[in-house]
Amino acid sequence: MQEFAKRFEGVGGSAIRKIFALLADPEMISFAGGNPNPAYFPAKALAEISSEVIAKNGANLLQYGGTYGMQELRGLLKERNKDVMNDTDDIIILTGSSQGIEIFTRVFINPGDTMLVEAPTFLGALQTFMLAEADIKPVNLQDDGIDLTDLEDKIKKFSPKFFYIIPTFQNPSGITTGYEKRRAVYDICSKNNVMILEDDPYGELRYEGDTLPSIKSFDEKGIVCSLKSFSKTISPGMRVGYAIGHKDILHRFNLVKQGQDVHTSNLTQAMIYEFLARGLYEPHVADLCVKYKKQRNAMLLALAEHFPQEVTYTHPMGGLFIWATLPENIGAQALFEKCTEQKVAFVPGQPFYTDDGHDDKFRLNFSMPSIEKISEGIKRMGQIIREFD
Amino acid sequence: MQEFAKRFEGVGGSAIRKIFALLADPEMISFAGGNPNPAYFPAKALAEISSEVIAKNGANLLQYGGTYGMQELRGLLKERNKDVMNDTDDIIILTGSSQGIEIFTRVFINPGDTMLVEAPTFLGALQTFMLAEADIKPVNLQDDGIDLTDLEDKIKKFSPKFFYIIPTFQNPSGITTGYEKRRAVYDICSKNNVMILEDDPYGELRYEGDTLPSIKSFDEKGIVCSLKSFSKTISPGMRVGYAIGHKDILHRFNLVKQGQDVHTSNLTQAMIYEFLARGLYEPHVADLCVKYKKQRNAMLLALAEHFPQEVTYTHPMGGLFIWATLPENIGAQALFEKCTEQKVAFVPGQPFYTDDGHDDKFRLNFSMPSIEKISEGIKRMGQIIREFD
Repeated sequence: MQEFAKRFEGVGGSAIRKIFALLADPEMISFAGGNPNPAYFPAKALAEISSEVIAKNGANLLQYGGTYGMQELRGLLKERNKDVMNDTDDIIILTGSSQGIEIFTRVFINPGDTMLVEAPTFLGALQTFMLAEADIKPVNLQDDGIDLTDLEDKIKKFSPKFFYIIPTFQNPSGITTGYEKRRAVYDICSKNNVMILEDDPYGELRYEGDTLPSIKSFDEKGIVCSLKSFSKTISPGMRVGYAIGHKDILHRFNLVKQGQDVHTSNLTQAMIYEFLARGLYEPHVADLCVKYKKQRNAMLLALAEHFPQEVTYTHPMGGLFIWATLPENIGAQALFEKCTEQKVAFVPGQPFYTDDGHDDKFRLNFSMPSIEKISEGIKRMGQIIREFD
Repeated sequence: MQEFAKRFEGVGGSAIRKIFALLADPEMISFAGGNPNPAYFPAKALAEISSEVIAKNGANLLQYGGTYGMQELRGLLKERNKDVMNDTDDIIILTGSSQGIEIFTRVFINPGDTMLVEAPTFLGALQTFMLAEADIKPVNLQDDGIDLTDLEDKIKKFSPKFFYIIPTFQNPSGITTGYEKRRAVYDICSKNNVMILEDDPYGELRYEGDTLPSIKSFDEKGIVCSLKSFSKTISPGMRVGYAIGHKDILHRFNLVKQGQDVHTSNLTQAMIYEFLARGLYEPHVADLCVKYKKQRNAMLLALAEHFPQEVTYTHPMGGLFIWATLPENIGAQALFEKCTEQKVAFVPGQPFYTDDGHDDKFRLNFSMPSIEKISEGIKRMGQIIREFD
């Protein structure tokens, strides 16, 4: 066999996937996942919609479509995003917003080019940047969002092509970059000609506080590309998301996407369109937020009750994750091993970083487990933590 | 804005797409497309199946799935392909088989690496190879398939990483590489450690003659990766295909696909599974072949009646295309311009090549136009050709 391309050197697949093997145990209480809760999927409405759209428009939906996506869906999404879209912007439908991370990277990165990520950041994005042979540099994430001094330093030092940021209810940390910092991130990047890839899969899952303007909303120069997803609000299994960005960037998205999948499935696009057009989206998301808020609150309550004070953690106003920091004497990997013996799982924090030394961090997911399991699981973890010395 | 990556240099988007702008004219008789006929889509069955699978299994289908694809669908496809699968082989579901061209290329090609294509070949694949910054070398295609002497010469001269071949009812030529040549292609590549990417989107649309073994069926070493599609048999708009190949190759497919789209839409996978499992596939494809055969026959008849003898063309035993060669005094681009004035369109052959000098070739599609339009369109083209001097 021929040698594989260089891009695979050092890429081992997602560390989280190895953890998932443990979760097959039905007795395991898992805070490890990052999935939306399948009990909340609008399956009944989608079942009806699916057969209706095929019956009504099968000849078109089952045929090849345009790479940019269905005109009707793009039109509706432009209408819904007109407050953040510049005159030079366009919209392209993606097979999940993760496709946008991959394509944006291929649009700008030659092997060896530098780009910046928040530290910690989304594991899947790190793998994508590695497969693009990007030189990935981390920027410290603080409790109120990205460290602006570190951002400016890293930009001056490395002249990166772009900065990948999840400003709202970040994965893995649950941290939200506030208004002033968003504005400053845009200004710093704009001044230094650094593109911004703004990933926003969680923003609509807000359980308290006011919605913040996206970084894209400040974009006068067309340097921000914004990724949006229906995976956390309607269904991840349908694989529909989209990107908003400067026409010249999306023209290249179009070229890359032609080779990847020609276009996103017309059927799933039409179903998302109908779900939105029929007015089902807003009440559904409002209902999701009520349900997830209860789960978040249950986890925060259990953490306050059962975790020793030396363990600190974020209080996210939305999203799916809480991010915890252990005291010096306890390692997250060691804790993980003890906890899985006691049938509780989570994700140790190290894989979310590009550099070593983050064994004090771990991620807890509250969207999947029931309120009872949240209480029981956090109680067990608290006991195990107290037994460390 | 930052500079785009080098991969876009010289990539201008598909030449065919520019032609498509002309096809908006409802009076145009088009032999330019390459789509399956939407009148033949099994829309009724798929509409029923879609709502049934969501109603029955919504919580799973609407959730994230595995990158390799749905276990049930993979199992069924393994069963159906067991005659060509080696012990070391596996199957991965793709968002259309074109994703397999893109991913295979990224698995093996570093910028500047050489690979071989048939000349002419599929335009979309050429764009994918260009975006991978591959050094693309053409191998002559003869009426009975690939030119073995040229293949061996090019392998010796360029040490390519792989050879991309569509052995059955090729796009654009309709040519099928016969049994002896398939065997020889495998032997030559195997001896010289050249991988083979065998693309087979048209093979099941056979209107006469016996099915030939795939090149994959000769593969003892795991050097052949085979791409299969449901786009020409069930529906292109659903975007479902798959790859069969050595586990070590598909493991890297899995890593790249994680970044591209995480997984192919579970809904469309489940619908393809049900269509196959309910026994609807074989009678549907048999019916398609009866219909397309009539269209192919109508085109061959019209060509015999209306084209001057100096124009030669292939007599494909299946697929969607006929490939014509003009005499020296007529250019396909000039013919295209005269024909579109008379409301007949086709695709001039030059874009299907990586080198110049192929303005004597053009492609005719017979799957989209009705039998009446085929007769009328070919008659008009014949008249225009006779007017050249």
